[in-house]
Order: sequence, then structure tokens, then C-alpha cells
Amino acid sequence: MYYAVIMAGGSGTRLWPLSRQRRPKQALKLIGQRTMFQHAVDRILPLFPPDRIFVVTRHEHAAMLMAQMSELPAENFIVEPEGRGTAPAIGLAAIHLRQKDSDAMMVVLTADHFITDTECFRQVLVAAAQVAADGHLVTLGIKPTSPSTGFGYIHHGSSLGIVNNFPTFRVERFVEKPDLETATQMVDSGEYSWNGGMFIWRVKRIWEEFERQMPQFFAQLVEVAATLKTPQYEATISRIWPRVTKQTIDYGVMEGADDVAVIPVDMGWTDVGSWGSLLTLLPADGDGNILIGSHVGIDTHDTLVFGDKRLIATIGVQGLVIVDTDDAVLVCPKEREQAVREMVDKLKQGGFNQWL
Amino acid sequence: MYYAVIMAGGSGTRLWPLSRQRRPKQALKLIGQRTMFQHAVDRILPLFPPDRIFVVTRHEHAAMLMAQMSELPAENFIVEPEGRGTAPAIGLAAIHLRQKDSDAMMVVLTADHFITDTECFRQVLVAAAQVAADGHLVTLGIKPTSPSTGFGYIHHGSSLGIVNNFPTFRVERFVEKPDLETATQMVDSGEYSWNGGMFIWRVKRIWEEFERQMPQFFAQLVEVAATLKTPQYEATISRIWPRVTKQTIDYGVMEGADDVAVIPVDMGWTDVGSWGSLLTLLPADGDGNILIGSHVGIDTHDTLVFGDKRLIATIGVQGLVIVDTDDAVLVCPKEREQAVREMVDKLKQGGFNQWL
Repeated sequence: MYYAVIMAGGSGTRLWPLSRQRRPKQALKLIGQRTMFQHAVDRILPLFPPDRIFVVTRHEHAAMLMAQMSELPAENFIVEPEGRGTAPAIGLAAIHLRQKDSDAMMVVLTADHFITDTECFRQVLVAAAQVAADGHLVTLGIKPTSPSTGFGYIHHGSSLGIVNNFPTFRVERFVEKPDLETATQMVDSGEYSWNGGMFIWRVKRIWEEFERQMPQFFAQLVEVAATLKTPQYEATISRIWPRVTKQTIDYGVMEGADDVAVIPVDMGWTDVGSWGSLLTLLPADGDGNILIGSHVGIDTHDTLVFGDKRLIATIGVQGLVIVDTDDAVLVCPKEREQAVREMVDKLKQGGFNQWL
Repeated sequence: MYYAVIMAGGSGTRLWPLSRQRRPKQALKLIGQRTMFQHAVDRILPLFPPDRIFVVTRHEHAAMLMAQMSELPAENFIVEPEGRGTAPAIGLAAIHLRQKDSDAMMVVLTADHFITDTECFRQVLVAAAQVAADGHLVTLGIKPTSPSTGFGYIHHGSSLGIVNNFPTFRVERFVEKPDLETATQMVDSGEYSWNGGMFIWRVKRIWEEFERQMPQFFAQLVEVAATLKTPQYEATISRIWPRVTKQTIDYGVMEGADDVAVIPVDMGWTDVGSWGSLLTLLPADGDGNILIGSHVGIDTHDTLVFGDKRLIATIGVQGLVIVDTDDAVLVCPKEREQAVREMVDKLKQGGFNQWL
């Protein structure tokens, strides 16, 4: 059977002041009236019945996400005591799926990306499942729209044929976030995709890879798995998880794995990582402004106003990001949007805990 | 006897969103922990007992100002049904003072200016009262600190001698708000003061001038005066005031008056008319920022943050004015601060009444 696992453990500090420790990115209504997590579930509901949609999230966010998607069974929320990176999150989901269905096909998805062409997305998942059925670890490759230095890249290798209309390749290699020159060369070559962090594999196959490539973590996983559905589970994972080494699935597994396949896909995928990403996602008005909430402007251009209840008034501003929340306001030029992370660090250092 | 009359009828649209129809400039804590109105009373309390301090204000603001200065007798708040400009406001105060004391000396002051050297201010008032005792209409002249085109100017005429250490002059003429070239010439000549809208005169003298120069208004005043301290007063003023022609004391009286004197004074006077004026008044930090309320900044320079309860976070901004209130936020470059008036007009036109 096919199972979806939505990774919803992130925090999203670059979306401060909207994102907070208790209100992470996946729980925010950034695009329309649904949260990022709701969008992530919505787009797979035509493919998966709710009882086969699992969610990996952190202890402090579980109740909120459950409330946002009450269609999903509560037991499908797999809770990490704390985040240890994508490899442990996927490993934890794997032991739950294995127990349920030893032949499970696992579709690993994210809640912090937005996809405009959801039909295409579902079609590529169907294709990926076919490729994964042959034993491949399949990763979706995002067709690059710019020589971004913010993503890892995947070099396409030899063809695995066309599956469900999608040309499919062996992965030649994974490339870390490159410099601009390298990124430009890669994008121009047409042989690279962005690594979008979405994977499809048999749970047996990823289990083998954990055992082979991350033996220490595998031993920890086995120890947790032994207590699954027993009264000792909570105590066991609470004891073991803080000792798990932080690791990404890319570093920990994918780069060293055998039989990795990539299916490049152009489905209007956007990483909603920062305020700047909303500028590319949301429709702008004739002045280049994206205005959410109540706004009145004079001579206002190329500005993102992300408001809520209050009126935001702007005069003579250009290229600004203005985010208003109940207890904090951010004003920042578009080109400095990455520094929002620094702002959060500064708040931490300054002990401004109420705003974290 | 000497009586102070504080003109507190303005609105202060250029201080939106802090100033509102129901919360005018004089009621705001713009400088320190006292409102502009409280500052205006504070600085004359060493000269006037509270029962000789009168306040002219509008119907909708009277209760708020009374609450801000409960030391003043409630009957000293002279309420206009609606604002008709400074000439009617002064005329209305004059009929109240005349009835109380036919030989009253009237000191007309404002609540929308800030004065740093309050000792000097009180000394010049003492000097002005001496000059007014001789029958002059005395106006305080503000020593210009720049060739501002935002003020009217007063040309000093022949000397009236030195009174209480203040050189005193006949007024040669009043000059309307000039262009920059004219303003520069006037300031360079040393023969001009800014017109600060503060006046000292015997109530008899201003009464004569109203009769001579504004006969229609004078007749209306006499009609209101006839009902003073009678049950008909409210009905009378409510009937007459809407028909009073709007007029300033400068146009209506001062420009055509006989025996006008000016006492130039350098007392750290600032017109608190707009957000920009606070930039000159409040002390800036090492980065040129003036930060009121909770603020955290990264690369923030020459910026005024006028906050309240919420955290204002700024990254990479320069020369901005950011004003945060319970229900509205303004973001505007310093050099556009005069356009705040346009913003208020735009809100009116757009029917955004809750924010006016």
C-alpha cells in the first residue's frame, strides 16, 4: 500500500514575526485561507485516504496541526520529542509504517513548499511510485527557474525511460548549495534539478539504507521500534531522541545510496522559506504591490504588506516588506529579507522571549 | 489681573495615526510622559494660579482635556461647538474674561508647540505683559533657526526699548508664509521673527479691534456675550457659531491692528506639527535613531520609531518614520512626512472612518 508522510517539523524563522516557536511556518496561512500544512494535505487527498496520510511533527506543534486537519486520525501524527533533522524524522516514520505494513510504499512530502500545478504533482507521484516499485529510491527533481544558490542540485545520469509521461533518470550525484557561477552552469546545461526534498521509496529499501549507512542511528531506531504500541514507547523515544545525531536525509542517506532515481518535474513549485518567496508566489497589483489585509498607500511600489487586523498605511515606500502581527511589526527591504533570521537570533540573544 | 488662555482646538492630522478626530494632537504624549496640553499648562503654572488658566477647545475634546488637567476648574474650559479658526476662539475667550474682569490682561498661548527653555518663556511673558499694559497688542516673535517656508514672519519695526532684558519692537508688518528665497533673505537680515501665534493684550484692546476690523463677527460675539451665565448660552452659541466666518487672528486682526509690538525670543520653541518635528526635538542615539517603545533593529539609521505596546523590528532601513498604534501602522520616509495629511484625506475619501 502507499502511504504519504508529510514532514511538518520545521520552524521557519525567516517568516518572523508571523512564524514563532509556537506557531511554525506550516501552521500559517501564507497563501489564501489554508495553512501550509492544510495545503500539503489538500493536494494529496485525491491520492491517499486520510488513514494513510501520516505527519511527522514536533511535540509542541502536534495539537495545533491535528486541529488544522481533523480529518486525519490522531494516531497518524508521529511526534518527535525534538527535531533532529530529516533523516531521523523519516526513520521514525519508517518504523511506524513498517509495523503497519511491511511492504509499505512511503511517499515523503513537505509542508513548507507551495505547488501551483497540483494535478501534475499527483501525476508525478504516480510515476515515482512505479519507479520506486522497482527498488529505486526516487527523488523528485524541481526544474530550476533560476540559478538559485539556495538549493541543492541533482545531476541527472542515464535514462531510466519515460514513466507515466515523465522522463526518468538515475541520479549521477547530489550537489551541495553551489556558488552563482556553478549554479548558472548547471541550470544552463539542462542536466540538473533542484533538490526539493520529496522522496518515494519502499520502506524496506530506506530501512536497508539506514542500516548500511547510518548504523548508529539504525540501532537507535530499532530500539524505539521494539517499544512501538507498548506503554514504554514514550519513555523510550524521550530517552533516545535527544541522543540521536542531527542529520539530513540528503547527507545521511541519499548521497551514498544505491539505485537513486530522479524525476524532473515542472509543477510550479516554490520554497516558501522567507517573505521574498511570497513576492514571487502571490499576485501583485499594477504597482507591483502585494497587499494582504487592510492597506492604504500613497506612492507605494513593489512592496509586500502582510497585515492582519490593523490598517497599514504607507507613503512613498518602494521594495519594502512590512509584516504586522498582534504583537510585533517588521519593516525590512525586500533585498534584506534573509536577515530576518538574524533578527530572530538577536531577539533570542536579547532575551525578548515573548516575541520568539 | 493676568489670565492665560490656552488654544487647544486643533486636530493635528499630520500626526496620524497617533492623532485622530477623537484624540487630537494636544492630547498626545509626544514628548515624554506628559501630553502637549499638559506641557502647555505645566509651563505657565509658576505664573498663573489654576483658576486664571482658561482653555479654548472643541466640544468633542473638552472632557478628555479636563481629565488630563483636573487641577483646572471645569468652568475654565471654554467650549466651541466647532472650530472656526483662531480669531473666533480668541473672541470667545475674550467675552468670558471680560465678564470676569473688565480690566483683564489676556495671554494667548498654544498647546501644539514645545518650548525647551520654559524659564525664558515665562520671563518673556512678564516682559510682554508690561508692554501690553501700555495698550500694545504684543506678539511673541520666534527667533528663526532656519529659512522655513512653513511659518509666517514678523518684520521688526522701530524699537520700543528693552523690557525685562528683551529688546522690543513695533511690528512693521506681518508676512505670509514666504518662498524659500524670501525666507532666506528675511532670516539673513536679522529683522524678522517667526509668528508663533502667542499674544498678550488687554482684553479691552482686542475687543476694540474686533469691533473695528471684524464688525460682523463682533456683533455675533456680542449676541453670545449677552447670554453668558444664562440658561440660553448653550443654545445661543450653538446657533451662532456655525454661522461665524472662519478666520485666523493674524488675518482678521493682527495685520490691520494699531500699536502692535513684537518681542523676539529664543527659547527653544518648536512647532510640533508633524512627525518630522519630533526628529528635531527628541534626542537621537548614535545611529541617528529616535526609538520610542519596544524596538529591535539591524542596520537601522536616522529612523523615528514611535511605538506603543508592540515590538517594532527594523532591518536595513534608513530615514523612515514608523508609527505604531493600536489599530494602525504608518511607514513613511522622513522627507514625505508632510504627505501624512494626504493620507488622512485619502482615508476620509475612502470611508475608512474607523481610522480617522
